[in-house]
Amino acid sequence: MNYVMEIKLTTGKTVPVEEGESILHALWRQEIYLTASCGGKGTCGKCKVRIVEGKADIPSPGKISDADKQEGLALACRAFPKGDVLIEIPEGSRLVVGQKIAVSGITRPDEYLPEGAGITPLVGHVSLTLPPPTLDDNISDLARMRRSLDESGLSGMRFSRDFVSTMGQALRDAGWNVTLTHTASADAPEAVFVSPVGSDKKYGIAVDIGTTTVVVYLVDLADGKIVDVGLTYNSQMRWGDDIITRIVHATEGGGLEELRRAVVSDINDLTSVLASKHNIERDSIECATIAGNTTMTQLFWGLDPGTIREEPYIPTLNSYPRWQARSANLKINRRGPVYTLPQVASYVGGDIVAGVLASKMHRKEELALFMDIGTNGEIALGNNEWLMCAATSAGPCFEGSGIRHGMRATDGAIEKVKIDPATFTPSISVIGDGPATGICGSGMIEAISEMFLTGVLDQKGKFRDSLPPELLVKGEEGSEFVIHKGESGLITLTEVDIENILRAKAAIYAGVSLLVSEVGMSMEDIRKVYIAGGFGRYIDIERAVVMGMLPDIPVERFEYLGNTSVAGAYLTLLSEDLRVEAENVASMMTYVELSVSGRYMDEYMSAMFLPHTELGRFPSVEKILKK
Amino acid sequence: MNYVMEIKLTTGKTVPVEEGESILHALWRQEIYLTASCGGKGTCGKCKVRIVEGKADIPSPGKISDADKQEGLALACRAFPKGDVLIEIPEGSRLVVGQKIAVSGITRPDEYLPEGAGITPLVGHVSLTLPPPTLDDNISDLARMRRSLDESGLSGMRFSRDFVSTMGQALRDAGWNVTLTHTASADAPEAVFVSPVGSDKKYGIAVDIGTTTVVVYLVDLADGKIVDVGLTYNSQMRWGDDIITRIVHATEGGGLEELRRAVVSDINDLTSVLASKHNIERDSIECATIAGNTTMTQLFWGLDPGTIREEPYIPTLNSYPRWQARSANLKINRRGPVYTLPQVASYVGGDIVAGVLASKMHRKEELALFMDIGTNGEIALGNNEWLMCAATSAGPCFEGSGIRHGMRATDGAIEKVKIDPATFTPSISVIGDGPATGICGSGMIEAISEMFLTGVLDQKGKFRDSLPPELLVKGEEGSEFVIHKGESGLITLTEVDIENILRAKAAIYAGVSLLVSEVGMSMEDIRKVYIAGGFGRYIDIERAVVMGMLPDIPVERFEYLGNTSVAGAYLTLLSEDLRVEAENVASMMTYVELSVSGRYMDEYMSAMFLPHTELGRFPSVEKILKK
Repeated sequence: MNYVMEIKLTTGKTVPVEEGESILHALWRQEIYLTASCGGKGTCGKCKVRIVEGKADIPSPGKISDADKQEGLALACRAFPKGDVLIEIPEGSRLVVGQKIAVSGITRPDEYLPEGAGITPLVGHVSLTLPPPTLDDNISDLARMRRSLDESGLSGMRFSRDFVSTMGQALRDAGWNVTLTHTASADAPEAVFVSPVGSDKKYGIAVDIGTTTVVVYLVDLADGKIVDVGLTYNSQMRWGDDIITRIVHATEGGGLEELRRAVVSDINDLTSVLASKHNIERDSIECATIAGNTTMTQLFWGLDPGTIREEPYIPTLNSYPRWQARSANLKINRRGPVYTLPQVASYVGGDIVAGVLASKMHRKEELALFMDIGTNGEIALGNNEWLMCAATSAGPCFEGSGIRHGMRATDGAIEKVKIDPATFTPSISVIGDGPATGICGSGMIEAISEMFLTGVLDQKGKFRDSLPPELLVKGEEGSEFVIHKGESGLITLTEVDIENILRAKAAIYAGVSLLVSEVGMSMEDIRKVYIAGGFGRYIDIERAVVMGMLPDIPVERFEYLGNTSVAGAYLTLLSEDLRVEAENVASMMTYVELSVSGRYMDEYMSAMFLPHTELGRFPSVEKILKK
Repeated sequence: MNYVMEIKLTTGKTVPVEEGESILHALWRQEIYLTASCGGKGTCGKCKVRIVEGKADIPSPGKISDADKQEGLALACRAFPKGDVLIEIPEGSRLVVGQKIAVSGITRPDEYLPEGAGITPLVGHVSLTLPPPTLDDNISDLARMRRSLDESGLSGMRFSRDFVSTMGQALRDAGWNVTLTHTASADAPEAVFVSPVGSDKKYGIAVDIGTTTVVVYLVDLADGKIVDVGLTYNSQMRWGDDIITRIVHATEGGGLEELRRAVVSDINDLTSVLASKHNIERDSIECATIAGNTTMTQLFWGLDPGTIREEPYIPTLNSYPRWQARSANLKINRRGPVYTLPQVASYVGGDIVAGVLASKMHRKEELALFMDIGTNGEIALGNNEWLMCAATSAGPCFEGSGIRHGMRATDGAIEKVKIDPATFTPSISVIGDGPATGICGSGMIEAISEMFLTGVLDQKGKFRDSLPPELLVKGEEGSEFVIHKGESGLITLTEVDIENILRAKAAIYAGVSLLVSEVGMSMEDIRKVYIAGGFGRYIDIERAVVMGMLPDIPVERFEYLGNTSVAGAYLTLLSEDLRVEAENVASMMTYVELSVSGRYMDEYMSAMFLPHTELGRFPSVEKILKK
């Protein structure tokens, strides 16, 4: 390939570009990343650049307004330079990932550890005092170790070449008085390394790989205390916001290794920041647990996720062997074992198994519902006798994706909305001290339910005709309701936005409804609803019921659990019993594939109304409407 | 470090040299290797170079004759350039290794396979026909495989990340109709890879790593046929001829990785030559077995052999786990398992266990003696109830090392010597068509026994006074007996040579004698003597008895078995029963440490005579002498 053309940035940097290559792709190759929720398909409209000089072919402009076009803006993914070009990247298009973002909503999961259960981390430690070799006792170093292990009741240990290659020297350096670190596993434990007795403290990391964020807990293996917590965006966002876009990049784009490296770097960066902050050596971090959805987990291990996306939606494996840290390039002790939370199916991953584990719903008689309202809206229903689960494909709209002014719940996001029933004028509250720049998921739920209760929207989610013209403006995609008049323009919810939000909430409700009816029960039978996920924290339960997203059951039955994915990773880092329990939970869960269920489609269509076609299912909303 | 000086070779090549660095060492760094049996200690006198221009410091000249010095020759290991020098490397000093040498004495070990035993190679193959996934049967790929394995009675298989990462695609490419290759091991077999049913033939290699030579058998795993055989010098010879020199280089010289790479390259080169000759893909060579002495085996696996050399002489491990080919950088299928023949002790290695296995002495009631007369002269004594073994430290003199005109049994070596009892004039026969250039081990045995029987030597190994002056000349080390007057000079045995040979034969005889007396038996009780090793093939048993190296028992009880090390490697490549048997043989063998035994020293001193101080132990020799 010859780079006959160049893209020059207004910052001065120059980027080579091939004939027929998009600006977005050319920038990627130089590790300049633009926001591209859709992964470069022209559908999210976020990778805007201004072409200052030169010409680019734009055969199909994608989702971009005429106003933007007139200002010289184009989507980088749709623009193919025809010769050298000079471009400007607006502040809002540049993706800043990999930097630590604010930690919030971290629930300390210490309380979840089973009562009276001793800590049995993923690595075990056994002290061995070996008699030094003599001419009369001249068995090999390894035989000496095995003999001592037999005496400690630890037979059948496996030894890697890597372990053996440093063992002899380590034994002598320590004067034959060592701690052997090994993987704690019922069958055939594996030796990890030997160190002098009484050496450094030992740590582990519990990792949650979310599609959007990555969380690392640094944990003291002696007492289970969480030493510190780190959180960052998942750098895979460079190649798209949602799971499907990432799978496409991994398979069609040949980007599997790129995606694997991105997320492993995120974890390594966080871990190394935490470790150096607390003066902890890399080698003292002896094990890790990983919880994530199926795609994130497969990408972490470098396993092609292609079959997850295609019917019949098959993951490569659901129950993971305990592989070594080095086989994932995880920068902890390279021989340390990594436990991966088991999955149930392609769209119910280790994060959900972790969540159920942390909720303890699988131990109790009462019927409980577990909901992780993130990108996919995974749900689990059951008790100590049975568990069912499903993924509702709610989509990432509550995380801001696919919503004109949507954004994550960070500074500048409108998180609360009240609408005056007389004037229809909204009043808002914004996260942080600055001006409002967009609307986050909880703001959307508040806005929609207020708009419905005040009559701005009808039951079908359509605008009523007689709204003040300054509140209902016309945009390129039809009518838009003005939530806020900001300094840099209007923040609105468009008809398309509202339809997207209704689709998401309908998908979630229909999933729950289907699972409940599958087992011949009703919503009222649910004694407990556990809400998990970063977004769940901000949901006003009553407003979500008004909108018809959550079932209309007493608000006191709802409980917010925080990030249960990392909580489950934390628990399984510290307890062999809970690792066994996690495997049992995963194999006990019956997966219902909603995408092929006719009944689910019926439920979904019925839930596309506010709150629902059958208002009787939402008695509390009916009561409010009657007032 | 600054390379302020240069060594220029007469070939035109230029080599940088540091202040205080020897010429030998500077050449090593550029991968120019000289013969250096002693590893660069100045004691073997073989790394001669001629300093044509410039000056070198030679603080201690080492083992070099005044005549050589006057010709401008110096030992490269003793010469430290003081500025730029121009050197010439004489033909005889250059070490040519890594090239294939003649194959001789390869015994086809097919006959050793136990009767009626099926072939159970180190890798097993199981055909699996998996039902393709559907929405109703949507378990993961790995769970599908496990289910099918359970049906085949193969539970508890272990799966590496490496295996899993290519498994999904391989299953689909093969249309779910695959052969799973796995390590054949009683406990927890490990999956190696999947391939389409009915694909290529499968091969393995059986490797003998000798201190001097490396032998590879390429074996068809289906029928056990030996497809081809390759043999080369062990390139570790660059750093010395014997085991101790190599250990010193590995530990003090930091050359562990260098030595490991050298021998692994030898095996890889041989394997790749054999494979391409027979159009075999690297990945079709699915497993390997390795037999070698303890040091060679540890070096192959990259394990520091330092403790082997120091009292109490401890190897890192004696029984090896089945590690993967890639962990040794062995260029066969990277996930293929490698079985390592178990060792007994630091100086009784897997080559001896392989030999005992191949001899079948451990299965029979009769008392048998196994002797591998190579560098160390390892011996084993016993039957189906007990086995004892020892290493005699005979040294490498029969391989030419430490003998003025010593050489290996290759072209130009004097292999047979007759001495006229009247004139004391020797007549010789030489290997190959060319002129004699030195004397090999079998030639030494013949020469010494002839010299003794004709009275050239007395019982103490000293020259009689009244020898013709043209046969007994004076050299720098004392008297020398002329074996041959060659074109390029005399080929002699010096007093020092003869003492070295007596030491070697005494060490071997004393070892056997000690083991026999330890169990309260006599030499006459030995029903069978198995001779192994490349050198053993050329020994004239009766002459070796005359010299007092072998016990004086009927010649028909001796049997030459060839290279039993590679034979044992071959057997264990093909049979799980024999792998188990090899482990049993190793653990059944009682090791006797001769170096600390007072009784061994007594036996040794008595054996320093020709044939022995107690002539009564050698009745057949006594009979000859009486005639």
